[in-house]
Amino acid sequence: MDYNAASLALHEKSVGKIEVVSKVAIGTRDDLSLAYTPGVAQPCREISDVKDDVYRYTAKGNLVAVVTDGTAVLGLGDIGPEAAMPVMEGKAILFKEFGDVDAFPICLDTTDVDEIVQAVKMIAPTFGGINLEDISAPRCVEVEERLKAELDIPVFHDDQHGTAIVTASALINALKVVGKTLSGIRVVVNGAGAAGGAIIKMLLDLGVTDILACDRCGILCEGDEDNPAHLEALAQVTNRGKRRGNLADAMAFADVFIGVSAGNVVNQEMVASMNPGAIVFAMANPTPEIMPADARAAGAAVVGSGRSDFPNQVNNVLAFPGIFRGALDARAREINRSMTLAAAYAIAGIIEDDELTAEYVIPDALDRRVGKQVAEAVKQAAFESGAATR
Amino acid sequence: MDYNAASLALHEKSVGKIEVVSKVAIGTRDDLSLAYTPGVAQPCREISDVKDDVYRYTAKGNLVAVVTDGTAVLGLGDIGPEAAMPVMEGKAILFKEFGDVDAFPICLDTTDVDEIVQAVKMIAPTFGGINLEDISAPRCVEVEERLKAELDIPVFHDDQHGTAIVTASALINALKVVGKTLSGIRVVVNGAGAAGGAIIKMLLDLGVTDILACDRCGILCEGDEDNPAHLEALAQVTNRGKRRGNLADAMAFADVFIGVSAGNVVNQEMVASMNPGAIVFAMANPTPEIMPADARAAGAAVVGSGRSDFPNQVNNVLAFPGIFRGALDARAREINRSMTLAAAYAIAGIIEDDELTAEYVIPDALDRRVGKQVAEAVKQAAFESGAATR
Repeated sequence: MDYNAASLALHEKSVGKIEVVSKVAIGTRDDLSLAYTPGVAQPCREISDVKDDVYRYTAKGNLVAVVTDGTAVLGLGDIGPEAAMPVMEGKAILFKEFGDVDAFPICLDTTDVDEIVQAVKMIAPTFGGINLEDISAPRCVEVEERLKAELDIPVFHDDQHGTAIVTASALINALKVVGKTLSGIRVVVNGAGAAGGAIIKMLLDLGVTDILACDRCGILCEGDEDNPAHLEALAQVTNRGKRRGNLADAMAFADVFIGVSAGNVVNQEMVASMNPGAIVFAMANPTPEIMPADARAAGAAVVGSGRSDFPNQVNNVLAFPGIFRGALDARAREINRSMTLAAAYAIAGIIEDDELTAEYVIPDALDRRVGKQVAEAVKQAAFESGAATR
Repeated sequence: MDYNAASLALHEKSVGKIEVVSKVAIGTRDDLSLAYTPGVAQPCREISDVKDDVYRYTAKGNLVAVVTDGTAVLGLGDIGPEAAMPVMEGKAILFKEFGDVDAFPICLDTTDVDEIVQAVKMIAPTFGGINLEDISAPRCVEVEERLKAELDIPVFHDDQHGTAIVTASALINALKVVGKTLSGIRVVVNGAGAAGGAIIKMLLDLGVTDILACDRCGILCEGDEDNPAHLEALAQVTNRGKRRGNLADAMAFADVFIGVSAGNVVNQEMVASMNPGAIVFAMANPTPEIMPADARAAGAAVVGSGRSDFPNQVNNVLAFPGIFRGALDARAREINRSMTLAAAYAIAGIIEDDELTAEYVIPDALDRRVGKQVAEAVKQAAFESGAATR
C-alpha cells in the first residue's frame, strides 16, 4: 500500500480528521433553553461560586490540548504550525479512540519559549490537561518544566515521556526473555534529544545503573568543555566510568541498545560486539538505526523498532491515551514519575510471562486492553503519590 | 419548567456539552498508518510546501475558536474564564447544529487587551475563524479591531455584530408592517455598550439618519466634556440636532426604540409618547426594558424582546452560524460590512411579505432555513466585496 498517496487522499476527502460535536440534544426550544440561555446561567453561577465545579458542569475535565509549535514534527523537522496540524489532529483522534479523551490541536504561531509558556497558561482554563508535542529540543524540556511548575493541571511532553514509558515496557519484558535484570545490564542510548534524555531518566528510575549516552560526537562524558548544558546534565547521570569513544566503542559488551537517533547508524559488527542475549531497540523512523532482520542476523536476541511493519513496535499510542485517562480520572495535578513508572509496568504487564517471546515483548498498538490497564495503574499511582486526592 | 435546576442537572449528567470526535476510521492497522504515522507525513509535507493547503488537508477551514475572557458573560458580568465555559460550550454546539461549524471554546486566563490579542494570534494557525464572546466593553471593540487588522482569518465579535444583524433584520420587517422606511424614522438606541454601538453603526449602514443614543446619563451629545472616547465616537454619528435630555425625552415622537440596556427602564408613558406605529425592541435579558404586553397595551405596533417565551425573539443564533458558514465557505479574509448587511437582509427575507405580522417579524430561532440562506448571502457578499476570491 502506498501510504503517502492514500493518506493524502484520505485527508483531502474528509478535510481533516476532527470535528466538535454536541453531547446533548438541541432540537427543541426547551433543549435550547437548557443547553444555552436562559438555563446555562445556572452552571455559570455555580462555577462562579465554586471554581472547582468547572469539572462538574463543563467538558474541561476531559479536554486535553495537543500543543505544538511545529518545530520538530515527525522526522520532518521545523515545518511550522500549519503543516503540523495533520499530526496534531491524528494525535487527537488517537486520544479519543484509545482513551476516550477529548483532545484538541493547538498549533502555535511562535517558537519563543516564553511565548509558548504564556500562550498555554492563558488558554489553560479550557483544558483538563496539556499534551506537548513535536517541540524541538532542548526548548521542549524548558517549556514542559515551566508549565509543570506554573499550572495545576497535568502537563506531559509525549515525545519525551511517552517514548520513555513504552521503551521501558519493552525493556522490562525483553529482559525476561533473555534472563537478565535491570540492575545488571549496560545500556547504550544513542540520541541525546528529548526522547533520549527522558529514556535515560526513566532507566535510572527503573534501577538501571550502567548507562552510556551517545550523540553524533560519541559517548557523553561529564565535564567535557564543549557539552551544552542539557548534554552535561545527561553526562552527569551516565557513564560513571568516564569512558570515551564513538558509538561502536560504546556498544562493545553492552546488553541493550536503544536508538532514538537516525537511520543506518548501527551496523552488524556493532551488534555482534554486544554481550550475548543482546536487546536492540532501533526506533529511528522511518529508517531504523539498523534493520531488524540485520540485527537478528548479527546475534541480537530481541529486536524492536518504531515501525508497524516489524514485530515489537514501540508506539507511543500504548501510553498517552491511558496516561491522560488515568490522570484525568484521578484529577491529578500533575503526571509524576510514579505515574509514568506505573504506566510502563502496566503496559509490560499486558503480556503474561508464558506469552512472552522474542517477537512479542510489547503489546500490539491496537490492543484495547492497554489503555484501560494503563489508566487504572496511573490513577492509583496518582492517589498513592499524592498527585491527586481521593 | 425550572430551567435553572434542569440545566444544572443536564450539565452535570453529560459533564459539559462538547466532545471531539474523529471523522475517519481508526480501527485497523492500515487506518492508523493513514490517519497517523507513517501516512500523515505526506499531508504535512504538502502543507509545508504550500501553506494554503492547510485548508485542503486539515480541519482548520471549519474550526472556529469561541474566545472569551469571562468578563461580560450573559447578564452575569465578570465571572471569570472557568465560569464562562458553559456559555462557550453552548455557543459551540449551536455553531455545529445550525451552521455545521466545528467550534471550540477558548477561555482565557487574562483580561489584558494586549495579552488577549497576543493569545488569539498565537493560537490562530489552528483556526479558520475567531468568534469573540462576552468580553466587556469597551475593551472588546479594541480587541476585535486589532485582531481584524492583524489576522487574515475572519474575526467576529458576536455580542456586537450578531446582535446588530438580528436587530436590523427585525427592524427591516417591522417597518414593512407599520408602513415606514429606514430613511424616514427616528430611532432611539438605549445602551451604549458593545451591542448598542454596533447597532448604531448597522443602522447608519442601512440608511437610518435620525438616531438618538442614550446611556444611563441620558442622550449622548457630541462634544460633551465627560464623554469617554467610545461614547464621543457614537455621539458624533448620532443626535445631529444636539438634543439633550433623558431617555423619556428621547423617546417622545420616536418611531423605534431599541433597548440593549437593563430591565424595567421604560414605562408605558414613554411608549405612548412615541409616534403612531411605534416599534419597540426591548432586548435586555432576562428582564426586558418593558414587558412586551405592557408595550403593546401602551400603543406599540410591533414588539420584540430577547426572550424565547415572547413573540419576535431577537436571538443571535439566527446570525452567527450562517455568517461563519458563509465566511468559511468563501474562505473570506474577514467579515466586513457588506457581509453583515447581507446577513441582515437574508434573515429578514426568510419571512415572505404575506406572512409578516406584528408578531412575526423575525424567524424562529429553530428555523433551519435561516442558517443556509444567511450562509449563501454572506458567501456571495464576501466574493462581491473582495473579502474572498473565487
